[in-house]
This record gives sequence, C-alpha cells and structure tokens, in this order.
Amino acid sequence: MSKPLLAITQGDPTGVGPETIVGAWSQSAMHEICRAVVVGHPQILQRAVDLLGTGVKIATVAQFEAARDIESSPNIIPCLPCGSDEILAAKPATIDPRGGQAAYDALLVAAKLALARQIDGIVTAPLHKTALWRAEHHYPGHTELLAELCGVRDFAMMLYLPLSQSHSLGVVHVTLHMALADVFRNLTSEAIVAKAKLVDGVMTTLEGRRPRIGVCALNPHAGEEGLFGDEEQRIIRPAVETAKQAGLAIDGPFPTDTLMARARDGEFDAIVAMYHDQGHIAIKLLGMHRAVNITLGLPIVRTSVAHGTAFDLAWRGRAETTGMLEAIRVASLLTKRRD
Amino acid sequence: MSKPLLAITQGDPTGVGPETIVGAWSQSAMHEICRAVVVGHPQILQRAVDLLGTGVKIATVAQFEAARDIESSPNIIPCLPCGSDEILAAKPATIDPRGGQAAYDALLVAAKLALARQIDGIVTAPLHKTALWRAEHHYPGHTELLAELCGVRDFAMMLYLPLSQSHSLGVVHVTLHMALADVFRNLTSEAIVAKAKLVDGVMTTLEGRRPRIGVCALNPHAGEEGLFGDEEQRIIRPAVETAKQAGLAIDGPFPTDTLMARARDGEFDAIVAMYHDQGHIAIKLLGMHRAVNITLGLPIVRTSVAHGTAFDLAWRGRAETTGMLEAIRVASLLTKRRD
Repeated sequence: MSKPLLAITQGDPTGVGPETIVGAWSQSAMHEICRAVVVGHPQILQRAVDLLGTGVKIATVAQFEAARDIESSPNIIPCLPCGSDEILAAKPATIDPRGGQAAYDALLVAAKLALARQIDGIVTAPLHKTALWRAEHHYPGHTELLAELCGVRDFAMMLYLPLSQSHSLGVVHVTLHMALADVFRNLTSEAIVAKAKLVDGVMTTLEGRRPRIGVCALNPHAGEEGLFGDEEQRIIRPAVETAKQAGLAIDGPFPTDTLMARARDGEFDAIVAMYHDQGHIAIKLLGMHRAVNITLGLPIVRTSVAHGTAFDLAWRGRAETTGMLEAIRVASLLTKRRD
Repeated sequence: MSKPLLAITQGDPTGVGPETIVGAWSQSAMHEICRAVVVGHPQILQRAVDLLGTGVKIATVAQFEAARDIESSPNIIPCLPCGSDEILAAKPATIDPRGGQAAYDALLVAAKLALARQIDGIVTAPLHKTALWRAEHHYPGHTELLAELCGVRDFAMMLYLPLSQSHSLGVVHVTLHMALADVFRNLTSEAIVAKAKLVDGVMTTLEGRRPRIGVCALNPHAGEEGLFGDEEQRIIRPAVETAKQAGLAIDGPFPTDTLMARARDGEFDAIVAMYHDQGHIAIKLLGMHRAVNITLGLPIVRTSVAHGTAFDLAWRGRAETTGMLEAIRVASLLTKRRD
C-alpha cells in the first residue's frame, strides 16, 4: 500500500507556518508515514529553508495532473506554487492582507485537489484571521472556509491530543469562532447531538473503539440545579438523552472544570464543549504543542496545528515543529482508515 | 510567637468535609503550623473519626470565651458545637436542607469569632449550594455569604496553587457564581481594576514580591481585533490601562487559552479571569487537589478547599485531604503575614 499523499498549505507566510513545515520535513518520521506537497509560494519556502539551514531542496511542481505520482523525500520538498508575488514584500510577523490572501489562495488550491481526489488529505499551517478579513475574505478561519468550499453545514472543529500510549482525548466544539455573547443563540440541542455524533465517528476511526463522551455544562457548577442558568436543563440534558438513545456512550452535562480533569485522568475519550475557550483552555494546558485540529464532517481529510501564527516567534528560527508533525501523523492515519 | 488559631467549619456534613478535616488532622504538618478548632456537630465529627479509624479524641469546647487559649494537638480535636441535632438524621452524600443549614450555622459562628478577633482565620469545608438554598439561605456560596457578614462589597474569589518551589499562581475572578449569560452585565472596567488590585495585594503578601498579572480576554482569540466581540476593546483594555497607571505589573487582555499555558510556564504570577469556568478549568487541571480558595477583600482571613462536597466519594473513607491541608497552610501563612 502506497503512502498517502498530503497537501500542506503554507498558511499566512508572515507567521510560523513555513518554518514549521520545513522543520517537520527534516524529521524522518514524517517521511515514513506519508508523501507530501507544499502548496504556497516557493520563494517563501526557500526563505524558511535558508533560515533553518536544513539544506533541503525545493522542487517546483509545475503541472499537477500527475499529482498521484509525486515522490517527496527528506531531501526534496515538492512545492505547488500558488498566489501572487506580492506576498514577497510583506513584512514578517505582522498582520498584512497579503498574508491573508496567500493563506486563502493556498487553501483553495488544496481543497480543490482534495475534492478531486488528487490528494488524500490537507494539513494547514496557521493563518491570521484579521489578515484574512483585511484581504476581504470574511471567514472566522480555515474551518468555516473549508466547510463552505465543501458545501457542508454539519461540521465541527475537534482538538485531538494523545495523552499517553493508550489514551487520547478528542474535544469537539458546538460553537466556535464567535463572540461569547453569540453562543447563547447558537447553542441548540440539535447542534449538540450533531457534534456528538461527529466526534463519536472520528474517535471510533482513530482509536478503533467507541469513545466514552463527556458533555460540558455551559454554566458554572453545571448550573447548580438551575440556580445559575437553565441551558443545562433546557438544551444540553435533552441532547445527551437523544444521543444516548442513538447508541452513543455519552453522559453529562457535567461541570466543565471537573470534567476536564476527569477526562485527563482517563474517564472519557472525548469531550463535547459548548464554546471555544472551554475546550481550548483545557487542550492547550494538556499539551498545546502536540494538539491537532481536525475538521469533522467534511468529505475530505483536514488537520491543522492547534497553535496560531505566533508572531512572537515567527521568522526567528524558534518555532516548535511538534504540532505540525503530529498534524501530519493524524492526517495520514485518517486517510488510511478511510480506505 | 504562638501559632495562629484557625476555625475549621465542617461544611455540609453529608459531603466530604468532615472526612477531610479528620484526615488533615492526622498529618503532623498541620500541627506544626497552627492551632485549630472545628466548628460543627461533634457527633458528625465522631462519625468521621470512626470511618477513618484515626483514634483521635474529640473534646467539646463548651465555652468559647477563652478561645485564645485553645490547645489543639494531633490526639485531640477541639470542637465548638453548633447547629441542630436534626443533621444527625440526614443521609450521607445527598442534597439535604439540613446539610445546608448546618454549613450555614457553622459559618456564622466562625465569622463572628473571626470578626471579634477570637480566632485568626477561617478555613471552610465545602457546602452544597442547592442544599444551602433549600435551607432558605439564598447565597451562591460561602464567598458571597461571608462578604455580606463582613459588610464588604469589593471582594473576590482567588484560587491559589503552588506550581513549584519558586512559582505559585493566583487566579482571581471578576464574576463568579452566576449564569454565563449574566456575566455580560456584571463585567465592568471598575470591577476588573478592583479585582486586579485585590490579587496584587494578596500575592504580594503571600510571595513577598509584586506579582506579574495577566488579564484574560472574554472572547475567543481575545476578540480577534474586534471580529468576535468588543468587550476587550470597550471594557477590559481600558481597565488594564487604569491598573497600569496605578502601578500594577499588569498586561492584557490575552487569549485565555494561551495565557493559562504561559502562566503555567512561569510568565505570570496571577491571572484575572472574567468568569468562573475560565479560571477553574485551568486551576483544576493544574492541580485540583492542591488548589486553595481564598476570599480577597474581607477584614478576616478565609481560605477553603477548591473542591466541592464530592458526593461520589463522601463517607466512604476515600476523600483526598491534600486540599484541606493546603487550605490550612495558606490560612496560617496569611494570618502571620498580616501581623
């Protein structure tokens, strides 16, 4: 069986993306699990190679009709050029619409290749959302843009973190990139059930067994029996009952602070979080650098690093590559198990 | 210098409180740092002694006029009786208004003693809020009840966690025991500045140097420059500027998920969290059993375990005593440094 072919997008070239790709490329583990092509500007990639001094060669892939035959190696990075040369003038580690445009262009090319089954999955380097908006692409992030490109409405962001050899944790979010004040009108029983089913499916694929799912409360102390809010009784508990009846191994809502500690200690394999920070605070404390962002519900495989453009580290040769390598590993795993 | 005298309230007797007190009492470390008297029902305390089999004697303190002379020892628990005998019929590990009433009675006695300077500080065992409400005491918890008893309006809950020999983390909450939907109308620049000053004061006392304070954003990605909510620009950032001008070593607002990881790694000594779960998710993952709850802004010293009544563990002899011991240690430290 041949190794899966992944497209790695460069993300916002002013951030840490290009460095993390070149850094991951220098790890032999990457080449044991996949073949890969980088989608972005070859000269940006060359700058990252020069910065890290790895000596790897960049081979521009002019035609992509024969994508299936691409052979990547530790010594050669195939790069599918896309986007404008304007990005070459953007200042590193700054919010720049040219960076947002470059990330957008790379994602579009990668998504089309994935939808056409020319590649087996996409791994994205981080973009900066403000730069994306300044380039007039009004999406909260990669996840929502990919969902639109794929014509999908029931999707979700899952953060995935291997905690030990025998225990990984998947955290899915019912609401995501929105103001906290907007969570209330977007939180429905239907959305909770849909996200629970998505995380049930992908964790079963990744782990080979049905996950034990814990559902977060929205309010402190899970609403303390209705004293601090009624969303638990009105929205979340009915959703958990519906999901149980559908056969899921699910329970809750539980107070989120203790639930996260229980999951860390092995009581749950997956968590359904009601909003962005609820899941992200936990995952980033448990292993920020290793966490992988998986988009659930798409007809294609897509993973990403969990971290952002990290302008405080970008283009200084200090970026952490563990997350990119882990995102590549998980994407490879997902493509193989989908076969 | 004589050891400080602490009153330890029994909390809700149907929960883990009595066990944690008896468990802590059997640790010699406790007796090296303080003298203590338990406020509650002596027969409940006796049941906890019987359960754990520690053999410690309970000495009822009939008169409390000579409180200052109380000598506690590893072999004798002085107990100041309070509350009704009705609690003796309450079923363990259940929500019962008699449990809420007992916790309320013990806190009232302890608070009066502390305000009269008969004791140096209060350590509270957990109560269950629903039991408290069913006993017709409509307070969200110990913190708010104590603030009212002390006639204080500017108070805050701080969670305190020693992370290493040289680094502790204090997390203070701007809003606390309320529905998440109510946070928005309770979040003001004035409240943020007030809480920042409280945490600045107590951490300076505990650590002997001014803390570096990080302020949480409310929205994901700190609002992403206004894309996901404007509370950062409208409320939080002006508060940080005001606190800076007042001389505090403070910065933010930062995206909360990464801020918590940065604080864990040593970049900050204190965090100002906007709502309950934001702080609690982090602290409970970083060290639930060791975390101590400190009420800031009171004229008396008060600490508590960070955990709840834990009905899943209560009265089975399996309760963790580390938190109670740590709450006693921190209370002792606060009383000494106030002198």
